[in-house]
Amino acid sequence: MDFELLKKAVWQANLDIVKRGLVELTWGNASGADRDAGVMAIKPSGVGYDDLRPDNMVVVSLATGEVIDGSLRPSSDTPTHLVLYQEFGRIGGVVHTHSNAAVSWAQAERDVPCLGTTHADHFYGAIPVTRRMREEEIMDAYEHNTGVVIVERFREGHIDPGQIPGVLVACHGPFVWGETPASAVKNATVLESVARMAFQTYMLNSKAAPIDQALLDKHHLRKHGTESYYGQD
Amino acid sequence: MDFELLKKAVWQANLDIVKRGLVELTWGNASGADRDAGVMAIKPSGVGYDDLRPDNMVVVSLATGEVIDGSLRPSSDTPTHLVLYQEFGRIGGVVHTHSNAAVSWAQAERDVPCLGTTHADHFYGAIPVTRRMREEEIMDAYEHNTGVVIVERFREGHIDPGQIPGVLVACHGPFVWGETPASAVKNATVLESVARMAFQTYMLNSKAAPIDQALLDKHHLRKHGTESYYGQD
Amino acid sequence: MDFELLKKAVWQANLDIVKRGLVELTWGNASGADRDAGVMAIKPSGVGYDDLRPDNMVVVSLATGEVIDGSLRPSSDTPTHLVLYQEFGRIGGVVHTHSNAAVSWAQAERDVPCLGTTHADHFYGAIPVTRRMREEEIMDAYEHNTGVVIVERFREGHIDPGQIPGVLVACHGPFVWGETPASAVKNATVLESVARMAFQTYMLNSKAAPIDQALLDKHHLRKHGTESYYGQD
Amino acid sequence: MDFELLKKAVWQANLDIVKRGLVELTWGNASGADRDAGVMAIKPSGVGYDDLRPDNMVVVSLATGEVIDGSLRPSSDTPTHLVLYQEFGRIGGVVHTHSNAAVSWAQAERDVPCLGTTHADHFYGAIPVTRRMREEEIMDAYEHNTGVVIVERFREGHIDPGQIPGVLVACHGPFVWGETPASAVKNATVLESVARMAFQTYMLNSKAAPIDQALLDKHHLRKHGTESYYGQD
Repeated sequence: MDFELLKKAVWQANLDIVKRGLVELTWGNASGADRDAGVMAIKPSGVGYDDLRPDNMVVVSLATGEVIDGSLRPSSDTPTHLVLYQEFGRIGGVVHTHSNAAVSWAQAERDVPCLGTTHADHFYGAIPVTRRMREEEIMDAYEHNTGVVIVERFREGHIDPGQIPGVLVACHGPFVWGETPASAVKNATVLESVARMAFQTYMLNSKAAPIDQALLDKHHLRKHGTESYYGQD
Repeated sequence: MDFELLKKAVWQANLDIVKRGLVELTWGNASGADRDAGVMAIKPSGVGYDDLRPDNMVVVSLATGEVIDGSLRPSSDTPTHLVLYQEFGRIGGVVHTHSNAAVSWAQAERDVPCLGTTHADHFYGAIPVTRRMREEEIMDAYEHNTGVVIVERFREGHIDPGQIPGVLVACHGPFVWGETPASAVKNATVLESVARMAFQTYMLNSKAAPIDQALLDKHHLRKHGTESYYGQD
Repeated sequence: MDFELLKKAVWQANLDIVKRGLVELTWGNASGADRDAGVMAIKPSGVGYDDLRPDNMVVVSLATGEVIDGSLRPSSDTPTHLVLYQEFGRIGGVVHTHSNAAVSWAQAERDVPCLGTTHADHFYGAIPVTRRMREEEIMDAYEHNTGVVIVERFREGHIDPGQIPGVLVACHGPFVWGETPASAVKNATVLESVARMAFQTYMLNSKAAPIDQALLDKHHLRKHGTESYYGQD
Repeated sequence: MDFELLKKAVWQANLDIVKRGLVELTWGNASGADRDAGVMAIKPSGVGYDDLRPDNMVVVSLATGEVIDGSLRPSSDTPTHLVLYQEFGRIGGVVHTHSNAAVSWAQAERDVPCLGTTHADHFYGAIPVTRRMREEEIMDAYEHNTGVVIVERFREGHIDPGQIPGVLVACHGPFVWGETPASAVKNATVLESVARMAFQTYMLNSKAAPIDQALLDKHHLRKHGTESYYGQD
């Protein structure tokens, strides 16, 4: 089997998170899934972005995490990506960064509320923060359990990962997804931008209120609903 | 009829809002009017800035919004631009962005006060924020009504759109105008800069007071009054 | 008489304030004096930085402000520069900008305290803010009076302009000077940087205290005293 | 003896602190040690980064500070670097900057707490700030005593410089180290980034709590422990 297209898309997404200013040093990784083939491709661990090439992306089984293609070790965050693909059945790309503003909210352990239309255009409500992980979750299978607490947060909060394509892991940072690696990069860019603006909004007005439901519906559905009228499609 | 010059000026303005750091992704649009011809040209909807060319700008009737020239769909914010051209009779360019600091004030639902001469040089007083839009205004003809609440804010506040060439739509972001597309871009740049400085000023001094009327008059009229002595004219 | 070298140094300083990120649009100007010739050269008014050339710098008399060389109108801030050269007898360059952090302190009407060695290396104590100007000072000879309130602030505060080479004009922004146009640019860069760091320091600790006198002496005199041992001289 | 490789590594580190945005003007210096040869190489004093070349790095004795190779005067901070190499026996590179966020914490005289995994990956706990220096420490052998107060802070706080490779000198700024000049640059980059994010975190939540010990252990040991599984080694 040949994963050339998938590896190229994932390589491009890994370069784009750097180009968009979401990543310093090697603090980030992007993956993409080919659900028909039952695999995902992901950045190799600890390799500098300058040295990335499409053919050193690592392909692993979505079901087992076993390496199927590639000679390098996959990103240490691979088990987190796998849980997200397994539990959020329709996503095709995942991005993890330590982008500045998003991490600040994750460290403050606060959801990023939907304060404006920039946010509403891409996330249909607040972007949640997980609970802190418990000692036993950290000691054993930490990266797998990072995915588990994300899924728990969406399940218990009755949040649809198709409508809110991202999360803040408490004291850590954002994981963001989309239908493709490229759309996951786009959503990660949006998250950083709205996190920065929400920060400044609260500094100016500590009682700033989320937007009204009608405006949230309007903006989100204008772009994402079945009657969307944005763009050229 | 040929709109080559108009489309080129509008294309340039759309590139300039990106170049000046006012726009991420596709979050912005610029338009320009030719009042003799009764038309405006505007960015097409959802097209990336890299793919813009003068000849894919869309020309629509100022009176009816009907597409007169161009094969793409105009920006979804077209009805807002139209209301501004219709109601603010002397403006020749309109810019909409989601620039960082301006959006933060829009989300905080606070007017940007005139705290210094940078502001006074270009805006003759506070830059107003609109009220929130009502559910029925959002549900039906949303973009048109966005223009309507802007005009209402200026009318009820007795604000002259020639003296205050911009506004913050609550929970959304700035619309800025000028005599030409290029001057609208300039005013949008100024708005972002003074919004950022006003933010920092309030953090340093929550009781910071607007500048005195004499200084406001001096700076604004030095550049804009009939006895202006700034520049080479 | 030929002012080629002076005009080139002033042209370079005007480009450098843009390159260092201290100026947006045309919000800034730099000048330089030739005291033997009794003149200063300054940026022309309202000309974009892209269009500046050494030979469109304007040379005016230090004593009278009369244009001696050049076909354009000098910067509208020329009378402020003149007062500074007349009253602060040893300075050879003046820079005015609307740089972000410095303007924020000017609008907050707070002196920038000396909170660390970055500041102490270049400014021997707090960077003062002037009082607001009075209506009659604004109405008539505004730019001249801007210089007058700066000089008043230094005189009444017993501040040595050789030790504190810059000031914040209330509700306006910084004027910074030095022995040459290049050193004025350097001091303007320092002012912006220390203003930004002082802002963040106060956000972290609203009771942050200025550095001790011994440390202030050490750092300032290490670079500027008669026994300085910094650099290769 | 020939120090070509050492001087090249130190030259590269001095360029990298500028490239990473940690240094303005000439506010920074990097050094590297060759412990077998008993020397360190360091940036010359007051030389602009554009004029640096490998062969104008200055080589001095680690024991005595005597210049062994090079015709320029070494950085005025040389005595501080020497104390760090002498007291922290395994480090091979030291970087000093006035980077923006780190200086803000140093001026606020607050330790940077470990609020997230970005921090934990590189620093095994809070990054300490020193006490203020006493007048007699400043008056005589100031730069040497700067090193002494750093060492005192680590000794009295029972902090392992191998686990916390950096410090904030009160009212001054960061000194950061590593096994090589390149790793010191990396740690200085991390410090600036986590200082910026910790600042924003506290603005959002003044009661933000450090991460749990289990998470700190997990992240730090994942990269630095004897059973580390990050990267390709």
